[in-house]
Amino acid sequence: MGLKVYGVPMSACTARVLACLHEKGLEFEFVPVNFFGGEHKQPPFLEKNPFGQIPVLEDGDLTLFESRAITGYIADKFKDTGCDLIRHGDCNKAAVVRVWVEVEAQQYNPAIRPILYQCFVVPLIGKTSDQKIIDESLEKLGNVLDVYEARLSKTKYLAGDHFTLADLNHLSYTFYFMKTPYASLIESRPHVKAWWEDISSRPAFVKVSVNMKFEAN
Amino acid sequence: MGLKVYGVPMSACTARVLACLHEKGLEFEFVPVNFFGGEHKQPPFLEKNPFGQIPVLEDGDLTLFESRAITGYIADKFKDTGCDLIRHGDCNKAAVVRVWVEVEAQQYNPAIRPILYQCFVVPLIGKTSDQKIIDESLEKLGNVLDVYEARLSKTKYLAGDHFTLADLNHLSYTFYFMKTPYASLIESRPHVKAWWEDISSRPAFVKVSVNMKFEAN
Ligand SMILES: N[C@@H](CCC(=O)N[C@@H](CS)C(=O)NCC(=O)O)C(=O)O
Ligand SMILES: N[C@@H](CCC(=O)N[C@@H](CS)C(=O)NCC(=O)O)C(=O)O
Repeated sequence: MGLKVYGVPMSACTARVLACLHEKGLEFEFVPVNFFGGEHKQPPFLEKNPFGQIPVLEDGDLTLFESRAITGYIADKFKDTGCDLIRHGDCNKAAVVRVWVEVEAQQYNPAIRPILYQCFVVPLIGKTSDQKIIDESLEKLGNVLDVYEARLSKTKYLAGDHFTLADLNHLSYTFYFMKTPYASLIESRPHVKAWWEDISSRPAFVKVSVNMKFEAN
Repeated sequence: MGLKVYGVPMSACTARVLACLHEKGLEFEFVPVNFFGGEHKQPPFLEKNPFGQIPVLEDGDLTLFESRAITGYIADKFKDTGCDLIRHGDCNKAAVVRVWVEVEAQQYNPAIRPILYQCFVVPLIGKTSDQKIIDESLEKLGNVLDVYEARLSKTKYLAGDHFTLADLNHLSYTFYFMKTPYASLIESRPHVKAWWEDISSRPAFVKVSVNMKFEAN
């Protein structure tokens, strides 16, 4: 029984789940997947996640995939343990967390993900990254960050004055983004920059990010 | 006080919220936004949603945006009213709903959305749709639907034997998709087809879909 995470430490989606478990101070077993050997596309793993992607969480005989579903599940099931990530005591505050969790998923992620793919994954598979895709995504991301800058000038975190799941879900992609030549998108916006420095230095994420090395071995 | 939805009946994201309100049998006020006049990009509306998108839900003095955050909020706040969309009585079943809600958001939506954009929005703004984008997205969508076909051969709905938020969130985009020349992607997969016929004929969605006419007036 107990919690088991299947993934790879350098995978941003795996790191999202690990950061959440650490914020909650939960014990878990980490099961490394042979990602470069394609283990996630083979039948035993496909039974856990039919989309053939990491991470997967097992909690006893329950098997879950999709990193944001997993962090939402952990935040809810262990709501009274560690950091309160969903403001569960207050229906209106919890609703605002919900909104900004979706903003990460629907606005931030679609803008930042292609940039990371072009900067890290494409060279890894021996191809040349497509600057047009990068530029279009940077423009989108800039627009999203303008909204964040205005928001974070009014509240310390995205969903209000407390660190929540909405902030946490941003950590791992932003961590890699800061290693691209485009980090100034964050650094040039003072409130976004302060927010990033704050959330990325939380002990739970530091524990995870020391193992986030994007290398093919 | 009470519930107010800001949107446009033909907007798929608005329809997602309306379908949820009808499943719950809730009373609400519908406030039409002058979308083609750009009202959603003007300051009064931007105060409700800084991303300048419809729909927005107001519940008393709480203002929410992002359609999936809104349906999640309604399903949770009114959990004991109408159809139980989140299986809230059982933590494990609720977790499975969470997973398939995320599958719609992270797998289905990114595949289907560009097709709808190319087929409906691009011609509307007087441009020629990009067949390469359509073809790539159809391939992605086909892969997602293969997983759905296998899943729906085992359980009647995506998250198990009950209609939930996971199914509901698929309704409005799939409704428009069935009006494209590519509806065979659904129709050729017997379990997906049966699921679609079932969920799209629910009275709550029929009420919404009669007003979903994609036209520029
Ligand atoms: N939406 C999924 C995405 C997971 C994902 O993209 N995982 C990557 C590794 S970081 C993967 O498994 N890629 C293999 C593939 O997509 O085939 C989540 O949030 O869990
Ligand atoms: N992720 C948002 C998307 C909303 C959305 O794309 N709304 C469209 C109408 S269906 C819109 O307002 N488009 C204007 C724009 O994006 O500028 C949601 O689910 O609510």
